[in-house]
Amino acid sequence: MTMLGTPITPRPALTAAARAAQQAARRLASTDTNLRNAALRRMAQGLREGCEAIVAANRHDVEMARQSGASAAILDRLTLDAGRVEAVARGLEDVAALPDPLGEGEVWTRPNGLRIAKMAVPLGVIAIIYEGRPNVTVEAASLAFKSGNAVILRGSSSAQSSNEILADRMREALVAVGLPADCVVLLRDMDRDVIDEMCRMNGMIDVLVPRGGDALIQRVVRNATVPVIETGVGNCHVYVDADADLDKAERIVVNAKTQRIGVCNAAESLLVHRAIAARALPRIGQALHERGVEIRGCVETCGLLSFAVPASDDDWDREYLDLKISCKVVESLDAAIDHINAHGTKHSEAIVTESYTSSRRFTSAVDAAAVYVNASTRFTDGGEFGFGGEMGISTQKLHARGPMGLRELTTTKYVVLGDGHVRG
Amino acid sequence: MTMLGTPITPRPALTAAARAAQQAARRLASTDTNLRNAALRRMAQGLREGCEAIVAANRHDVEMARQSGASAAILDRLTLDAGRVEAVARGLEDVAALPDPLGEGEVWTRPNGLRIAKMAVPLGVIAIIYEGRPNVTVEAASLAFKSGNAVILRGSSSAQSSNEILADRMREALVAVGLPADCVVLLRDMDRDVIDEMCRMNGMIDVLVPRGGDALIQRVVRNATVPVIETGVGNCHVYVDADADLDKAERIVVNAKTQRIGVCNAAESLLVHRAIAARALPRIGQALHERGVEIRGCVETCGLLSFAVPASDDDWDREYLDLKISCKVVESLDAAIDHINAHGTKHSEAIVTESYTSSRRFTSAVDAAAVYVNASTRFTDGGEFGFGGEMGISTQKLHARGPMGLRELTTTKYVVLGDGHVRG
Repeated sequence: MTMLGTPITPRPALTAAARAAQQAARRLASTDTNLRNAALRRMAQGLREGCEAIVAANRHDVEMARQSGASAAILDRLTLDAGRVEAVARGLEDVAALPDPLGEGEVWTRPNGLRIAKMAVPLGVIAIIYEGRPNVTVEAASLAFKSGNAVILRGSSSAQSSNEILADRMREALVAVGLPADCVVLLRDMDRDVIDEMCRMNGMIDVLVPRGGDALIQRVVRNATVPVIETGVGNCHVYVDADADLDKAERIVVNAKTQRIGVCNAAESLLVHRAIAARALPRIGQALHERGVEIRGCVETCGLLSFAVPASDDDWDREYLDLKISCKVVESLDAAIDHINAHGTKHSEAIVTESYTSSRRFTSAVDAAAVYVNASTRFTDGGEFGFGGEMGISTQKLHARGPMGLRELTTTKYVVLGDGHVRG
Repeated sequence: MTMLGTPITPRPALTAAARAAQQAARRLASTDTNLRNAALRRMAQGLREGCEAIVAANRHDVEMARQSGASAAILDRLTLDAGRVEAVARGLEDVAALPDPLGEGEVWTRPNGLRIAKMAVPLGVIAIIYEGRPNVTVEAASLAFKSGNAVILRGSSSAQSSNEILADRMREALVAVGLPADCVVLLRDMDRDVIDEMCRMNGMIDVLVPRGGDALIQRVVRNATVPVIETGVGNCHVYVDADADLDKAERIVVNAKTQRIGVCNAAESLLVHRAIAARALPRIGQALHERGVEIRGCVETCGLLSFAVPASDDDWDREYLDLKISCKVVESLDAAIDHINAHGTKHSEAIVTESYTSSRRFTSAVDAAAVYVNASTRFTDGGEFGFGGEMGISTQKLHARGPMGLRELTTTKYVVLGDGHVRG
């Protein structure tokens, strides 16, 4: 445990890595988009040429994980075969094809003739701490690089062999087009202390993005003096309004809960208006039940569904990431909104309704990154929103909210042009 | 000293104040701009009607400060006379006249027909910790309120009587137009611990803005788990290029250094290209010298200016906020850029040059919130930029960089409209 106010000194290797990334970022800031896109395409080529070696390195990681008893889901996320390497390479080319987020902005002229341009510029050095998915190494690096930033990657020890070979291929591609290899820096320190050290590297790291479980994110938020973008927890609701179309309601609830259960934009709680509960709940409940979803219900829910189990108070705040859903009958639209604002995590919230007025009220009053009418919460995703990928889904209000694409990896610079102007 | 990871429990009065502000913020989020503007105009009227009582309360603060030996500058910033109350009231009307930052945004439609709108919404509850200037109480509250946020104000104990009467007048105006008084909450706890408690009120305070000295800002940045916008330190440079027009150079350097010395956008360091140093430095140095500015120079500067004193290494990093300037002769434009990127605080940086290529290179390569060509650094200001006021000048890269106007007090919400859409 560290004393607040006590400076944490990063180990020399970490400082050296960050300084190198910072130097690379300065060089990157004055590159044009053609050069950066050429580097991304060259990286794709490097991955394809190195496919066999990448798969072999990955096989080592997978074997170690298997021996240490990792679950099938974890092993699946860790595995790279030739098809997945090709998908990662195509991802790099897709990022190269996206429009450049840099240099865009607005310009205006003040009454005194000063011309002010507000322009998008890179953040500088972005550090990412992430879980055991080697494809994130390439996706995160490519988005940061496309938007002109150097990136410091701290992956999971379980994927380290895979991450090292992927980072090496990207670094070789950078050098091949005349850019510093240190635009992409992979940390090799796998102890937990390195995370705390990264949290305090003000002036060397411009933004820190933790991606992973709640424990990691809380550790970073508590320790960091470096600016952080929080990602993560989603206790998302689907509210079935009195005026809902029940076909849409069933389809959306089933999709939001079961299409993929381990993700932050999956639904964890179902709210149903009392006026429609007796018609809606048996049908939606049965559909969930058939897909193996355990329903933890309020008293009214349990009265309507024989297979529901009683919810306890803390069920309303839980992110199950599992085949479980909490379910509550509410007396009004406003009761649903109040429940969501009290128990939600401001991530993704949906209403199913045919009422224009209900949809307007819900989208205005619910405080969340994304608010849906008649659509599944599962769409909160950089790809689905049209951003061509994402660095994570921000659950904070500062800087970026919701899926973070290229634009969210930039900051602004005011360029002010005068002709000897002084202030009176 | 608090242990990292140890939760700090805010005192009950603080929690109650924040909960009340949060409730008010929920109500505010669904108001229209006409109602908010009516409240602002009513506040102005309330201040005018209460002018005598405000001046009397302020006289008490000023008298206490005088007895405790406050400097003339501090007493001046603390004082409200009838003219200043009128200026504060007019400020409220000016904010009412600004365009509404809320509800603006972009909309697009995905290939599957989902319509996505990205809209500006309030941040929620903004807390501000600030120095002994009662006009800030009204300016900060009015900008936060105009952009739909509730505000928690923690001013200086030296201005507490003034702040209380100003906050009371604003709260009365809110109630008069049918809004909750707690849109504006002034804290009455004047001990330092309350600052640490505010730093940990995640879920109750959405953003914390410390305004004041470096010690306060560092204390907040170190302690905060709540998102913070850093304001403050400006070690700003003026670089006189080989191709500078010396009339402009002299005017700009003198203005940037002396027009107001105690502010973050004042120049603290002068860089001069070697090729022009023998012509530029005697002239600019003399102009500064005549205005009482002490010049702390490099060896070459001291060789050219008999009145310069030798600079020590730490002079290049100092924010004097005083009639002092550091001065260095550099061998090239790139040396100037490197010096600024190494010693600047990324606030406001200026080049004086007639060379198009130098201006382009400088504005691209210098990493700062505002980069000037042939204009004084003193223009970095919400009013001067045309924002109609400012909540402070951000020196961080996340969320807001440079002067924070109304737009910087908002976040975004994605409103996604479907017709039964589910993810495949």
